[in-house]
Amino acid sequence: MSTIPNYPDKSSVNGFVQKYQRRAKELNTMLCVGLDPDASKLPASIKGHGGAMYAFCREIVDATADIVCAYKPQIAYFASQRAEDQLEQLIDYIHQNYPEIPVILDAKRGDIGSTATHYAKEAFERYQADAVTVNPYMGFDSIEPYLQYTDRGVFILCRTSNPGGSDLQFLEVGQAVPQKLFEKVAHLAAHEWNTTGQVGLVVGATFPAEIAKVREIVGNDMPLLIPGIGAQGGDTIATVQAGNHTNLLINSSRAILYASKDQDFATAARAAAIATRNSIRDVKGS
Amino acid sequence: MSTIPNYPDKSSVNGFVQKYQRRAKELNTMLCVGLDPDASKLPASIKGHGGAMYAFCREIVDATADIVCAYKPQIAYFASQRAEDQLEQLIDYIHQNYPEIPVILDAKRGDIGSTATHYAKEAFERYQADAVTVNPYMGFDSIEPYLQYTDRGVFILCRTSNPGGSDLQFLEVGQAVPQKLFEKVAHLAAHEWNTTGQVGLVVGATFPAEIAKVREIVGNDMPLLIPGIGAQGGDTIATVQAGNHTNLLINSSRAILYASKDQDFATAARAAAIATRNSIRDVKGS
Repeated sequence: MSTIPNYPDKSSVNGFVQKYQRRAKELNTMLCVGLDPDASKLPASIKGHGGAMYAFCREIVDATADIVCAYKPQIAYFASQRAEDQLEQLIDYIHQNYPEIPVILDAKRGDIGSTATHYAKEAFERYQADAVTVNPYMGFDSIEPYLQYTDRGVFILCRTSNPGGSDLQFLEVGQAVPQKLFEKVAHLAAHEWNTTGQVGLVVGATFPAEIAKVREIVGNDMPLLIPGIGAQGGDTIATVQAGNHTNLLINSSRAILYASKDQDFATAARAAAIATRNSIRDVKGS
Repeated sequence: MSTIPNYPDKSSVNGFVQKYQRRAKELNTMLCVGLDPDASKLPASIKGHGGAMYAFCREIVDATADIVCAYKPQIAYFASQRAEDQLEQLIDYIHQNYPEIPVILDAKRGDIGSTATHYAKEAFERYQADAVTVNPYMGFDSIEPYLQYTDRGVFILCRTSNPGGSDLQFLEVGQAVPQKLFEKVAHLAAHEWNTTGQVGLVVGATFPAEIAKVREIVGNDMPLLIPGIGAQGGDTIATVQAGNHTNLLINSSRAILYASKDQDFATAARAAAIATRNSIRDVKGS
């Protein structure tokens, strides 16, 4: 992996959204596992070794690959540890061994012009991610460089599950028609900004009524990436119902990664992943 | 640089803002040079060599160090090229050789909880930046982890100079008092969010009337980082007057870095930097 390969030009008929939908349908799963390897939380059997974050995540992947619709590595955990090489290895490992599972790079980038082009290159060429998360604050030209990669997915932050998420996202911005900022973002993402059909939204699980609102705005075809199940306390039943049972990527990270702190961490992660997948699968219509 | 050092606990009396103000006053300069080394634009004499981005930026730094109030490396240019090590080297070089010049890492990060903590660790411990740029869309708890480093600066995106900047930032959010989203961000940044006195704002040079509006909201003491001079076409006179001639970091990147494409690039960069510094310095009161 000493050189960064050229980006292969593919048709968006085989884009990220289609890859995700095939996978979710075949396995009847909407579970996305977040790969957030906190160096301080790794099991003692792995901690402190060279390449520990990669080794840990690889075992998690091998233990959960037949349960998930996607993986979502979070780049900050690698960047803070000077471990970008382990993130490259990890995504390469998933592509080589489980090519049918899409990888969403959680980077929440937001910049413009040639800088955004470089971030897109980072996500899609260097890391070979199938999709990336981005921030809408700088507007369409901060999203557009990612859409140049017509087969890759772009998840735009819409409504986030943290307490401060309301500081801006919940402001009323409508004039003729009252709407909140996150609803405006959902409108833009579903219409003016979705030039490739590969756009999705990030909507936190802690606000099911707002997931329902977003689903109403964007329709059933747009993928919604929903963090906040598990450690962040989102309610699975309400979440799945609010999302209309379709095109959801319901993410769990810590509750699966750290289901056990001991040597049996991979077995425990598998059990937690199965339980979470089933709890999503079992939700009946509202 | 094989291990990441522990973060030294310092008093904010010697924080980023004070470091910047000392420097700006001593040299009578408000010029910040953006270090955005686009691999495709490097001079032929440097291009293609190992460590070319570091070598290029180091020459720019040596040629401009007595002219600038700060440097602003943009991380995307390094990340897309798998060159984080060169960014570490570059910041370390500036600290070792020009310890009085603050370094602002332009990363525009935006995330929450433990992820934001890891991004703060990346910026302030791994890269040892004096300040970082961040995105406000996720609200206060996405800013707060950076403020834990009480002596480091945090520049919050407010009004950006790109065409799509208006997509969200220009939305009317006021109810009792009409205001635009960027004005709301300026209010939050100056009051509720500025718990350490080390917060600044990013305001694009292409909209001088909005710089004036932000300055009115936040007062004269808050540093405003202003990109958009030079390549992006902002008007220097209007910018400096709108910012009340004080606590401004007026950034120029491409117009200085690529003033010449030949071997004389450092000399040309110095001449361009001096001209820009002087054009800022010469602005009279409005």
